[in-house]
Amino acid sequence: MTDDLRYAVLTEGMLLGASGKTAHGVLRFRPEQVTAVVDRAFAGRRVREVVPQLASDAPIVADVAEAVRLGANTLLVGVATDGGRLPAALRAPVLAAAAAGLGIVNGLHELLGEDPEIAACARAAGGWIRDVRLAPNDLRTFSGAAYETRSYVVFAVGSDCAVGKMTAVFALERAARAAGVRAAVAPTGQTGILIAGNGIAVDAVVSDFVGGAAERLVLEVARTADVVLVEGQASIVHPAYAAVTVGLLYGSAPDALVLCHRPGLERIAGFTVAIPPLDELVRAHEELVARVKPARVCAIALDTAHLNASAAAAAIDAARRATGLPADDPVRSGGAALWQAIADAWPATAKARQREREAVTP
Amino acid sequence: MTDDLRYAVLTEGMLLGASGKTAHGVLRFRPEQVTAVVDRAFAGRRVREVVPQLASDAPIVADVAEAVRLGANTLLVGVATDGGRLPAALRAPVLAAAAAGLGIVNGLHELLGEDPEIAACARAAGGWIRDVRLAPNDLRTFSGAAYETRSYVVFAVGSDCAVGKMTAVFALERAARAAGVRAAVAPTGQTGILIAGNGIAVDAVVSDFVGGAAERLVLEVARTADVVLVEGQASIVHPAYAAVTVGLLYGSAPDALVLCHRPGLERIAGFTVAIPPLDELVRAHEELVARVKPARVCAIALDTAHLNASAAAAAIDAARRATGLPADDPVRSGGAALWQAIADAWPATAKARQREREAVTP
Repeated sequence: MTDDLRYAVLTEGMLLGASGKTAHGVLRFRPEQVTAVVDRAFAGRRVREVVPQLASDAPIVADVAEAVRLGANTLLVGVATDGGRLPAALRAPVLAAAAAGLGIVNGLHELLGEDPEIAACARAAGGWIRDVRLAPNDLRTFSGAAYETRSYVVFAVGSDCAVGKMTAVFALERAARAAGVRAAVAPTGQTGILIAGNGIAVDAVVSDFVGGAAERLVLEVARTADVVLVEGQASIVHPAYAAVTVGLLYGSAPDALVLCHRPGLERIAGFTVAIPPLDELVRAHEELVARVKPARVCAIALDTAHLNASAAAAAIDAARRATGLPADDPVRSGGAALWQAIADAWPATAKARQREREAVTP
Repeated sequence: MTDDLRYAVLTEGMLLGASGKTAHGVLRFRPEQVTAVVDRAFAGRRVREVVPQLASDAPIVADVAEAVRLGANTLLVGVATDGGRLPAALRAPVLAAAAAGLGIVNGLHELLGEDPEIAACARAAGGWIRDVRLAPNDLRTFSGAAYETRSYVVFAVGSDCAVGKMTAVFALERAARAAGVRAAVAPTGQTGILIAGNGIAVDAVVSDFVGGAAERLVLEVARTADVVLVEGQASIVHPAYAAVTVGLLYGSAPDALVLCHRPGLERIAGFTVAIPPLDELVRAHEELVARVKPARVCAIALDTAHLNASAAAAAIDAARRATGLPADDPVRSGGAALWQAIADAWPATAKARQREREAVTP
């Protein structure tokens, strides 16, 4: 589904700075899908010259037409603004993309498909608009069909929001693909959807349908992936958002869990609720899913960006000792070790199925 | 909030039969709020003569005008139809109520507030329309304010959907009030809302806001109640709807839980998921809330309507022995025993607060 999207990532003056974080995510995890960045302020340079940590060789061009000449077929709105409105400076390039018949992918709250001018323009030129915050209007409740998928489903749980669940699944996807496995992320939040080009933003889904949304997403992604890496949300101990967590956890019907955590975090952000120790969190998740569809936590993914190298190594070591499970920071050291832990947990039967499928796939 | 609603319950030919179940719920649990039933087919008789098990003395009248003469100030649409459309026969009486300036309470999927003719009529006459399936549009995420309420919050959990959670909370409310306690239900489903006249239908709330909706509801009800009895939904082991369950469970921040179950039920309806034994369900709920806000299960409410008297007594006894907790069927034997179990668990400090409040309340 995502393989034929070649992005012109529109940042128009915002490539540098916090508003450009959507573009940064796509450039980090989908460099192969980015044909060019459209940003007049930095035109003529390469992304790595402007944002060195992205290490991206993508060219920066002055307008959409130039990106199309380079091969782009989809405009990705690469900014995240406070309030989610489309900045005025981006309107002209979005209209140009619509007039050129490009696909448009947008994660802002402002729905471009409901903007009369942009929508009419896209329609006239035969293009399409995907507002990723918009939940599908034909969602159903969970049916149990997800229990039947032959793909191996891995779900990223976490101790809190913002502890690296999305980063972990994309790092694992990259490592699995490097190991020759057909793996794909099932994104459940706006940024993940923009990176992957598919997914459902569950924060906009009516509560009865969260499980059904997760199930549908897993089944969709499983059509072309032997390993589905589901981006979890929040935490089972989160006083405000655990409904979303549990809906996704049951609805995606995982075979294995990865537990994500930021070392040093002691309480749920904004609340006095204590985050349980890692071994207790492992047990709590396994007990919860055991009653519905059993799955084990097979690895711990740590976000150690705030620590120096030796403190990070010590934190990773502590997590290993506390849980008896493989632990790593998939950004700091690449996702290979974590992926190996998941591959080791992947049942022999599932692996045999993959080989079987490989044998019949041309 | 509910005390000044005097209902004309509109059934118009459907008082007898399954479509009248909404009217039946209101007549069973809110007889004191029902001024009259409007149903031309049975006009001139009393409800007990038409539906004996309701034991209601409410008069049945031929039209809305007659109900108003008897003192009704609100029309309650008393039918639940497949598909949730307003039956044609009910349109004229609804319009008559709107023209008379009555409040209109409606639980059908068809929103009467969005019906141009009915809405215009109500507006012109100074009436109001409450479509209870419609979630408030100003919901927020859970803030933690529910932790601060001085009322005693009791939450009804269950082994599955349709095991008597709504019936239990209304039976407990009745028993608590009979014992002189200011108790009130916080309804979270359509039928409960129609019975109580307030509440939020959480099946229509966006997943991020389920906890916030529960919190808001608890705080609203707590304004005039020392004991808030929250109607739970589904089950923590329900593969499809546990998101709603957990969102309500964390968001209502209960002080105590009542576990509802129908003896003999072995699997979640529609799924192969096994319902754990009662003692395991007690432990699972207590462990889940212990990490966020601790609460104990203080009673087991059984729905034994499908059993004969001796089988029901045996099932109640078995539940007591399995859990070591008070157990009863609050419909079969009245809610007094179950209420007593909850009152016994009500901390002395809370009771002192209630006495304190009684001392200052005129």
